[in-house]
Amino acid sequence: MKFPVLYLRKGAERRIKAGHLWVYSNEVDTRRSPLTDFEAGSQAELRSASDHPLGTLFVNPHALICGRLISRDPAHGMTPQRLTQRLEAALSMRQRLFPEPFYRWVFGDSDGLSGLVVDRFGDTVVVQISTAGMESMKDAIVRAIQRLVQPLAIVLKNDGKMRSVEGLESYIEQAHGPEQQTLSVIENGVRFEVPLAGGQKTGWFYDHRMNRQRLQSYVAGKRVLDVFSYVGGWGIQAAAAGASAVICIDSSPLAIEAVHHNAGLNGLDTVETLEGDAFDALKALTAEKEKFDVVVLDPPALIPRRRDQKAGEQAYARLNQLGLRLLARDGVLVSASCSMHLSQDRLVDIIRGSGRKIDRFVQLLEQGHQAPDHPTIPGIPETDYIKACFVRSLTGFF
Amino acid sequence: MKFPVLYLRKGAERRIKAGHLWVYSNEVDTRRSPLTDFEAGSQAELRSASDHPLGTLFVNPHALICGRLISRDPAHGMTPQRLTQRLEAALSMRQRLFPEPFYRWVFGDSDGLSGLVVDRFGDTVVVQISTAGMESMKDAIVRAIQRLVQPLAIVLKNDGKMRSVEGLESYIEQAHGPEQQTLSVIENGVRFEVPLAGGQKTGWFYDHRMNRQRLQSYVAGKRVLDVFSYVGGWGIQAAAAGASAVICIDSSPLAIEAVHHNAGLNGLDTVETLEGDAFDALKALTAEKEKFDVVVLDPPALIPRRRDQKAGEQAYARLNQLGLRLLARDGVLVSASCSMHLSQDRLVDIIRGSGRKIDRFVQLLEQGHQAPDHPTIPGIPETDYIKACFVRSLTGFF
Repeated sequence: MKFPVLYLRKGAERRIKAGHLWVYSNEVDTRRSPLTDFEAGSQAELRSASDHPLGTLFVNPHALICGRLISRDPAHGMTPQRLTQRLEAALSMRQRLFPEPFYRWVFGDSDGLSGLVVDRFGDTVVVQISTAGMESMKDAIVRAIQRLVQPLAIVLKNDGKMRSVEGLESYIEQAHGPEQQTLSVIENGVRFEVPLAGGQKTGWFYDHRMNRQRLQSYVAGKRVLDVFSYVGGWGIQAAAAGASAVICIDSSPLAIEAVHHNAGLNGLDTVETLEGDAFDALKALTAEKEKFDVVVLDPPALIPRRRDQKAGEQAYARLNQLGLRLLARDGVLVSASCSMHLSQDRLVDIIRGSGRKIDRFVQLLEQGHQAPDHPTIPGIPETDYIKACFVRSLTGFF
Repeated sequence: MKFPVLYLRKGAERRIKAGHLWVYSNEVDTRRSPLTDFEAGSQAELRSASDHPLGTLFVNPHALICGRLISRDPAHGMTPQRLTQRLEAALSMRQRLFPEPFYRWVFGDSDGLSGLVVDRFGDTVVVQISTAGMESMKDAIVRAIQRLVQPLAIVLKNDGKMRSVEGLESYIEQAHGPEQQTLSVIENGVRFEVPLAGGQKTGWFYDHRMNRQRLQSYVAGKRVLDVFSYVGGWGIQAAAAGASAVICIDSSPLAIEAVHHNAGLNGLDTVETLEGDAFDALKALTAEKEKFDVVVLDPPALIPRRRDQKAGEQAYARLNQLGLRLLARDGVLVSASCSMHLSQDRLVDIIRGSGRKIDRFVQLLEQGHQAPDHPTIPGIPETDYIKACFVRSLTGFF
């Protein structure tokens, strides 16, 4: 197949050659290949300024990230067949690692499918398309999923924030099978039901699954606080692993309702909830001199954009100090972050500073990352975002 | 208790206040407190230049690291009672996390016991003392261990390289119970026996235990290569988890003998060995067009000192390229490092570069660290040294 050529400016091929898959609009030699010549979602060949072929890509002239690599082979465009091969390669790895069909099946760039996320919840598959290129493959995606796993239902949850940037409308579509109100999830042997419509992202965050599995080793017979609990991913798994008492804090009434529902689903009567702002709730618990053996902090991204770095890091520091203060004399803090802009090293340093400030002897027991159904690509820092530090905090020890 | 005072130079308290526990000899105000006034292994109070009390420490005037904090409370010296409390705190965390008595019980600074390492192998406890301060507590250490876990045997394996720096002689001493020729280990449900005398360090490296546990998810029915196998920690566990064939490479005849012995212990007939230099063996396997589904690279520290940085990183790059080349079209590389001087980020970048060089699509599935019986202390970078990247490598995929 022959494609029109998109030319890069001199030197702009470096990041691509090093492993990244994105082209920014200011890297394009627009005199040689005007972006306006390309339709949103069309395919093109990518070449360096010196005419070196770099592969094929989806082009969107309206987006800042105007190109997303399809292949490093200039003869390979995206076709239904290639799409199916990639979905299959992604699936085989998940099937090898997870005995039950609950996982993120496709994680965008990391699975060679920039702009596509697919989550599998048993017989239901939820798809999120975020780029014009992937939108052009919509029907092929649905057919490939049907062919590979024969699900009962496929939902296109195409209401992500990034779609407007790509000039795509926002919609939810039942692409196959009966309409779903809730999603059933089994994670680390614990059952959950989450609302599909009002829920966040695809409805469930598999990314912390390994960290929640590790949590289970720390909680038997312990009093656990789950801050920013959402539907209870951490807290309910702690209760299922034998925690004597769990309190889940979230500001969303829907989430709190789901926590109670999920506790019931697993026959657990040890889970309580606190509806409200997490920082306020933590301060109130501190004022009441409450103590916990394990505190889990899994906030939303507190550094949403690079320009929020300083304020965001300060928020993490406040949060971690509050968490440490609520721990018993020998307690465990699970400090998570999903901010791409907060490195593992910075989070560890924030914990160090928080511990020193209130004179705790702090041992970093485990450093968790995102689960293998969210692989990262070395060379694409944007694919690496999840951190979870398991920290033991000792008072009066040293 | 009153101690003689060791004064720091102006500003030298910063690192200590930030969380570190070591004082370097060039940070001491030797006019105000000549190091020659202190005996090796004696206790002192530490103060900043402005007379601010910073705690107590063990002093060794002959060592570059001339001070090691005992406590941040200037009234608290090291006593048999305090030593026992710290051993107890360390023990309680290991007992909580590991159902069987096989773990690193004390990891030096990370457990508030600078200069002391204690490994537990069921009824046998192996102690390593590396500083004059800890050497002065030798009898109290043995008594505390006896009191806390009543082992059959306690071995002082005081033959580490760092002892001469501290002016300590090298010796192995049976401090309690009958003499041991071999150590029995159970790790992740797999049995090992390792020679105590000729073996490395205390005889076993628990630090990769969690990473070896994760390995077990990747190997069922697969062909596995374990490079720098030592006594077979990775390879034998892979075989026990159902690998169809395992080859262990090591240059030490003793290690190779132990691999065969340990395979037999677990009734495994799928383990072969190759005795020789790892780089040479990898090149030979490549020349023979051998392919493996899983390759484990767990070399000794290839960057032993800071000045070896460049040569060491090049060695890691060569090694990772060799490992990737030996993988099947859809294979998994487990790339480990125990070099304190190689950061996680640098290792990931070396893998990125190696993958790009030979045109593999490389997904970083998991990032492992040292196990929680080797906690790290934020603020003491020297306590953080183990890395293990689980990498999927795809050929002809992108």
